[in-house]
Amino acid sequence: MTESIKVGIVGYGNLGKGAVAALSQNDDMELVAVFTRRAPESLQIHNQKVKVLHISEAGKYQGKIDVMILCGGSATDLPEQTPTFAVRFNLVNSFDNHAKIPEHFAAVDKVAKAHGTTAAISVGWDPGLFSLNRMLAGAILPEGVDYTFWGRGVSQGHSDAVRRIEGVKYAVQYTIPVQEAIDRVRSGENPHLSAREKHLRECYVVAEEGADLERISQRIKTMPDYFAEYETIVNFITEEEFKQQHSQMPHGGFVIHSGRTGHGLEHKQMMEFSLKLESNPEFTSSVLVAYARAVYRLNKEGQVGAKTVFDIPLSYLSKRSAAELRRDLL
Amino acid sequence: MTESIKVGIVGYGNLGKGAVAALSQNDDMELVAVFTRRAPESLQIHNQKVKVLHISEAGKYQGKIDVMILCGGSATDLPEQTPTFAVRFNLVNSFDNHAKIPEHFAAVDKVAKAHGTTAAISVGWDPGLFSLNRMLAGAILPEGVDYTFWGRGVSQGHSDAVRRIEGVKYAVQYTIPVQEAIDRVRSGENPHLSAREKHLRECYVVAEEGADLERISQRIKTMPDYFAEYETIVNFITEEEFKQQHSQMPHGGFVIHSGRTGHGLEHKQMMEFSLKLESNPEFTSSVLVAYARAVYRLNKEGQVGAKTVFDIPLSYLSKRSAAELRRDLL
Repeated sequence: MTESIKVGIVGYGNLGKGAVAALSQNDDMELVAVFTRRAPESLQIHNQKVKVLHISEAGKYQGKIDVMILCGGSATDLPEQTPTFAVRFNLVNSFDNHAKIPEHFAAVDKVAKAHGTTAAISVGWDPGLFSLNRMLAGAILPEGVDYTFWGRGVSQGHSDAVRRIEGVKYAVQYTIPVQEAIDRVRSGENPHLSAREKHLRECYVVAEEGADLERISQRIKTMPDYFAEYETIVNFITEEEFKQQHSQMPHGGFVIHSGRTGHGLEHKQMMEFSLKLESNPEFTSSVLVAYARAVYRLNKEGQVGAKTVFDIPLSYLSKRSAAELRRDLL
Repeated sequence: MTESIKVGIVGYGNLGKGAVAALSQNDDMELVAVFTRRAPESLQIHNQKVKVLHISEAGKYQGKIDVMILCGGSATDLPEQTPTFAVRFNLVNSFDNHAKIPEHFAAVDKVAKAHGTTAAISVGWDPGLFSLNRMLAGAILPEGVDYTFWGRGVSQGHSDAVRRIEGVKYAVQYTIPVQEAIDRVRSGENPHLSAREKHLRECYVVAEEGADLERISQRIKTMPDYFAEYETIVNFITEEEFKQQHSQMPHGGFVIHSGRTGHGLEHKQMMEFSLKLESNPEFTSSVLVAYARAVYRLNKEGQVGAKTVFDIPLSYLSKRSAAELRRDLL
């Protein structure tokens, strides 16, 4: 492959930073510019050679950028930015609001088809690689049950919810899969598991001086939707400990499919996919970068419109040729 | 989906039997006939309604069978049968001679393209699902190392090698991954591991009466290519114990990719895919059946020629529509 794929990044939070790092591991791709809503000169970019521009400049790069990696949030950024960018650019995003995926897909598909662009949505690990594994396992072993466990890892949504409580200065929430539940699933027992039986929630909180710790703890543990139905552990720690021990963003999880085959369904067959990530955003952006390559190729072939991980042959993610993949990896 | 996919099975060994069972779990597929080289009336078929025909009758079913599942062996059956069947039928096989995959692909591709058929080769779990995971992980985390461990499971090739030794009546060989090696890989240490450090081999042997057990044990342990470079354990057991404890065909294994991300490669990122199978042939044939569905669809779309797991979008394996998959599994 001699031509390099020209990539733009929209948004420079954790995901955008991860995408800059991930692109440096892929020598068939070239970062043209990072686009931000902030003042471009205010961004601290690790690699000084990276061009940073205001997002309002992006339109000028039509035809000069092969794929845009959208690194905004799913709540407000992506629903608005994705159809807008799909007018001019091939793109990939990590839209992760599961309930709204069909609606988001339809909106992006319409624009992308009208303008001849290709847009991979909901790319990452969940939705993304975990979804692929759930789908694959269900297609191979229709007589089966699948289980998804998340963690140990930081949930941004739950951490934010704790931070909004009065008297909380800093907080982080770890979702932790219950080992006993995983063991029961791996045994092929096919248990019915409640939310509480699958995961527990552990919070590390730095309180404001003079705050009522017992009250904060109660507010967390009884918070509906977020904590009330789980076993929740609340630890109060110092600001120093918080900064030293809880500034990383680890995550991961397990997709386990417990199936049966044979005329009498007499044989247990277990499929498992798992991730153990020291940096959730860097991993997610590595997935986005691989799918950016796929989007570029699909568009070259005339495959336009919205796509998901289900629609894209995995060979499109690799920079190696199909013949090399067959020879070395099959 | 109202029309059902019409399937034929060629070969009625363990894989063919597994395919009959797997098809019964997929209500969008219909088994038209099993084709065998043996006398059709000699086959004991679990489901009495299955039609069994001599393989010489297969040609008459052109146009009446949408996909043939070839269940023969990779040594002699598949290299000969696959191009022959690709003249008249879409097909899927589990060709697993890694070194000869490029040659087999080329031979099948030529015939399939000339006759407008679609042929998925080397489908199963290794080659197959394990290959997919090696490829996917390498594309996402280029700075990484992948490790494949097999077992605990029966290796037919090694079992056959032991059976050929004089004085051996029955024998089975289990390949066993070394837990310490797996733990080192999972820690992100990226160790260099020799064959001996990754797997050990355990044999259960029923000797002929009066045979020299010490000599059999030595012959096994010093056999080049098969056992000499491994730690090998040889257990002599009775015929009764053999039949009770060692008539199953369990297998499985692990594909672990240990990667790094970040500008200083400071974050470890582990991806793992594993299988724990009580019946290796029934699982492999379940994979073949799902890919038979994909082959049918690819051919309907005009995508002809040889294909591998790398080339086929995973949504093609599922009987559910793309919209359903997005809504329920993404």
